[in-house]
Amino acid sequence: MQTTNSSTEEEEIFQVRKLEISDKKKGFVDLLQQLTLCDSISDEVFEEQFNEIAKCGDNHLICVIEDNNSGKIVGTGSVFIEKKFIRNCGKVGHIEDVVVDSSVRGKQLGKKIIGFLSDHARKMGCYKVILDCSVENRPFYERCGFKQKEIQMPHRFCHLYKSSPKACTEEHPKTSINQYMFSKRIITFGYK
Amino acid sequence: MQTTNSSTEEEEIFQVRKLEISDKKKGFVDLLQQLTLCDSISDEVFEEQFNEIAKCGDNHLICVIEDNNSGKIVGTGSVFIEKKFIRNCGKVGHIEDVVVDSSVRGKQLGKKIIGFLSDHARKMGCYKVILDCSVENRPFYERCGFKQKEIQMPHRFCHLYKSSPKACTEEHPKTSINQYMFSKRIITFGYK
Repeated sequence: MQTTNSSTEEEEIFQVRKLEISDKKKGFVDLLQQLTLCDSISDEVFEEQFNEIAKCGDNHLICVIEDNNSGKIVGTGSVFIEKKFIRNCGKVGHIEDVVVDSSVRGKQLGKKIIGFLSDHARKMGCYKVILDCSVENRPFYERCGFKQKEIQMPHRFCHLYKSSPKACTEEHPKTSINQYMFSKRIITFGYK
Repeated sequence: MQTTNSSTEEEEIFQVRKLEISDKKKGFVDLLQQLTLCDSISDEVFEEQFNEIAKCGDNHLICVIEDNNSGKIVGTGSVFIEKKFIRNCGKVGHIEDVVVDSSVRGKQLGKKIIGFLSDHARKMGCYKVILDCSVENRPFYERCGFKQKEIQMPHRFCHLYKSSPKACTEEHPKTSINQYMFSKRIITFGYK
């Protein structure tokens, strides 16, 4: 019964909850740096952005997983609710910025985050949730109930990156977390 | 100089502006029905949803093109602004629900809508705009400055479609508007 005990123990150690302002001190921003470009943020700017997002109430939820042993934030993801006129004035949940700390991958924490965000969208009355991911991450999201449909097309505004043009043309180096999660052969950066 | 005159004339006839409540009477909902499933909406429900979306201010913009000759709404699209912690507390504009009436395709109105929504996102300080589209529509969006990056994966919540399970499993029949816009061989439904 070792597996069950260990699983229950992990369940207690890694719980998903809403982001709090104090999570900045617990490594929330460092974690985001594993996902993509994320400069260090001052406490003031962080609080300002936190309060801006909080204005949307339940329509923009950022969740985190705190490692209750170390007190470190080891997982995060967000969902915001879009209100439409189509589909009977329906709502769609957009999942963004999902990442699990490289030190705790392989514990199904990604699935836990996706489940938490999807449940929130469902409770908010969404008829679907959508996300964009790399082709390599498709198998992971398929296991979470997602199915590929369209393609994602960004258009970057380079003028905002005059001081750092690299940020406009290049992505942060990354590969698939799932390649690590399921084969445990390589260390990776994040979901997207 | 016929082309220039004709082009200027069309410029005056088809102007992009923000959605107004009175646009429902001008065929706004009928137009959305060319995009995907969109049941008829009562004036009361429409106004309620309009006001809900308006609460987001400039963070959720729906634009329309009115045919100034017929007074009919012939194009629409929306963009909402997501606030993030990554990319220096950056913002991303999400473009959704772009459609041009089948009777006026081939006049570059789709491009006009995308330009309007992208400009809005740029003014709002976004470092990029993103959208999801079918593979067939990729060439059109590439001409608008977009570049394919990832894949889009939806997860539909079927329980919301108990009364109409078809809505959960099937999409509205549609093909690529661009196939019509650029080859003028077939009549199509919408962008997505």
